[in-house]
Order: sequence, then C-alpha cells, then structure tokens
Amino acid sequence: MTELSERAGVPIPTIRYYIREGLLPPGNLTSPNQATYGDAHVHRLTLIRALVEVGEMPIAAVGRLFDHLQEKDADEYVTLGLTQYALVRASASESALDDQEAAEVQDLLDRLGWLVNDHHPARATLAAAVRTLRRLGQTDVLGLLEQYAAAAHDLAESEVGVVLDRDGLDSRAEAVVSIGVLGDAALAALRRLAEEDVMTRALKKPSSGPETTN
Amino acid sequence: MTELSERAGVPIPTIRYYIREGLLPPGNLTSPNQATYGDAHVHRLTLIRALVEVGEMPIAAVGRLFDHLQEKDADEYVTLGLTQYALVRASASESALDDQEAAEVQDLLDRLGWLVNDHHPARATLAAAVRTLRRLGQTDVLGLLEQYAAAAHDLAESEVGVVLDRDGLDSRAEAVVSIGVLGDAALAALRRLAEEDVMTRALKKPSSGPETTN
Repeated sequence: MTELSERAGVPIPTIRYYIREGLLPPGNLTSPNQATYGDAHVHRLTLIRALVEVGEMPIAAVGRLFDHLQEKDADEYVTLGLTQYALVRASASESALDDQEAAEVQDLLDRLGWLVNDHHPARATLAAAVRTLRRLGQTDVLGLLEQYAAAAHDLAESEVGVVLDRDGLDSRAEAVVSIGVLGDAALAALRRLAEEDVMTRALKKPSSGPETTN
Repeated sequence: MTELSERAGVPIPTIRYYIREGLLPPGNLTSPNQATYGDAHVHRLTLIRALVEVGEMPIAAVGRLFDHLQEKDADEYVTLGLTQYALVRASASESALDDQEAAEVQDLLDRLGWLVNDHHPARATLAAAVRTLRRLGQTDVLGLLEQYAAAAHDLAESEVGVVLDRDGLDSRAEAVVSIGVLGDAALAALRRLAEEDVMTRALKKPSSGPETTN
C-alpha cells in the first residue's frame, strides 16, 4: 500500500477510506498483512481524485457513479446516458424546476431541435442558472445562451466521436466521465484565459496583464 | 429582515451569518430592533447564493471577491481582471504547476496567439486537467483541447462585448462574475444536453432517452 500511495500521490489513510467506502477494490492478499496492488488500482485512484478534486463530487456521488458503472445495463446507450447523468452536479439538480421553467427549457430544446430525455438532470441545472441570471437582471448575459448552445453542440459532435471511436463499454464510459469532469475543467480554464486575451486587446493593454499595477 | 428573507428566499439565520461575515451590509436601523433592507440587499443576497450554490465558492472566497470589488483599482482593466481571477476555483489553482507544465501551457497560449498574464490562476487549472487526463491515458480527450480553445475564444469575443457594453465599473464587474459563474453553469448544462442529442442520433435511438429501459 505504501507503493500504491507513492505511485498515485494519495495518502495511505485516504486509500484505506476509499477501500472502506467501496470506491477502490481491496488488494490481493499475499499474507495476513500484505496485499498487492496493480496498475488498475493506480488508475482507479487517479480517477477518484479527479472526480473529487477537479469535479468536486462528494464521495457518495462517486460511489453511486461506480456502482452504476458496475451494474451496466445491457443497452450501451442507457449505460452511457446514465453515466453522464451521474456527473451533473447534485446541488444544482436538487432545485427542481417548476412547470413554467420546464416548459421554457423544452421550448429552447425544440428551437434547437435537440432530442433530450425529459428526465435529464441538466434541464434543472440550466433552469437554475437562467432563473438566477434573471433575478440579477443580467439579460445581456442571458442573450449569450443561444451562442453557448451552438458551441456546446459543435463540441458534442467531436466528443461523442471520441466516445464511440473507443472499443468496449468500460472505455467508452470512462471517456464520458473524462469529458464531463476534466473536459469541463479544461474548457472553463480556457474560457478564463481567452476572456483575458480578448479583454487585453479590447482595452489595448500590453501583455503584462492585470496584476502589474496591483 | 423577515421580508428580506421571503423576497430573497434565504433563511434568516443565513442572512445574519452573511451580515456577520461582512458579505451583506447591515440594514438601516430605524429603531433598536428594526432595520430596513432595500432592493440592493435582495440583489446582493441573490448574488451570494449564486456564488455559493451554483459556483460552489466557499464563503471566505466570496468575501475576498467582494472585498476586492470594494477596493477597486483605479485601472478598470486591473479590477475586471482580478475579479475574474477570484472566480477560478481555488482547489484547482492550489496545485501549483511545475516548470515543465508551465512551459507547456505557455506553448499552447503561444500557438493560440493569446495574451495572458503569467500569473493567471487558470493556467494551473488547465495544467491540472491535462495532467490528470494524461495519467488516465485519455489522449483522445486531450486531442479535443484545441477545439475547446477555439470555442472558448469565440465565446470570449461575445462575452467581453457584453461586459464593455455596460456602463460603470460595478456593472461591468458583475457581468464578469455572472459570466464566470452562471454562464459556466449554463454552458456545462447545455454541453450535457447537446451530448445526449448527438449520442441519441449516433445510436439511432428515439427521443425517449436512456431512462426508458432502466
């Protein structure tokens, strides 16, 4: 376990906790107090850390995701879809949509021509963001939504291509998880960096950046 | 305060906590145990809830953001830039980049031709996502980064347009916050919905969605 801890960069008590919670399978016992861990353990630990640290998922949500990946549905489409649902942030989807909000999201999806399950949890996330922007009076920011939708769909074409180019359902499901957690984190970072570039050019500042005078 | 609580949909103990932490200014005292709260209080409370619930920012980070917005730099470019930096998730930016990662992020920015401050915290967020994708062996997902960058820059052109079309630094700073928190949440939701649409068409499923057989 010491070696596993070093290879994955995760402290031993944390590893024990993940094993207790069922997120990580126990090692193969070679003696009463010696177990071996392989590359699959390092990989699983890295994935758990990505979900917890980058995706900010609670341990219970990570457990539900792994349980779900274990009990795969015979239908690949169902498994990949439910994997994706498990990544939608619980906090946002807890706040249920009211009827008017649900109708508004459906109107947007109809205008876009998108086929989306009625129970997709991202409907509530989207409604919550729209509700808050409206309460804050940010109508100009709301005006960006259609452009966000177009960009999201262009990216989705490539993303689903990556998923379906893989062999095997486990590998495809891991692509869905990687795109939903690490892809989102990378995109958010690139958005902040791109916004600074555009702001820098718009205000005709040199490349020294905003911290130079503060 | 009862009325404020009802209008903003936030419980009174939570409001008291925000006042104690300096996130929300106290009401105007009209008698020793009566204070009045106006629209500005409702607006500020809605903003705090958006940062905490949608942006998942810790209270201390919200406090730092508001302190920063209060002590505005004379240079608008600096104020808007630092507002944006305050939104980059603390957890991801805590993990510092090593020299090789910093060089790799700079190479990407050079290829893209983007002008970005050396100290932009999103450099570390991006490096952390890339590092994890590499450890997990997701090279095909890494291959999406350039497309993410192009989409991020297109969106940034419109976003900076929204910010600079506004009058006044406070309003512009609030646009930066709304785009960075609520815009990101809306985009993430739209990405999941678009992915389902593309997946549904690719696997030639009807619009009933993945939950029908589970």
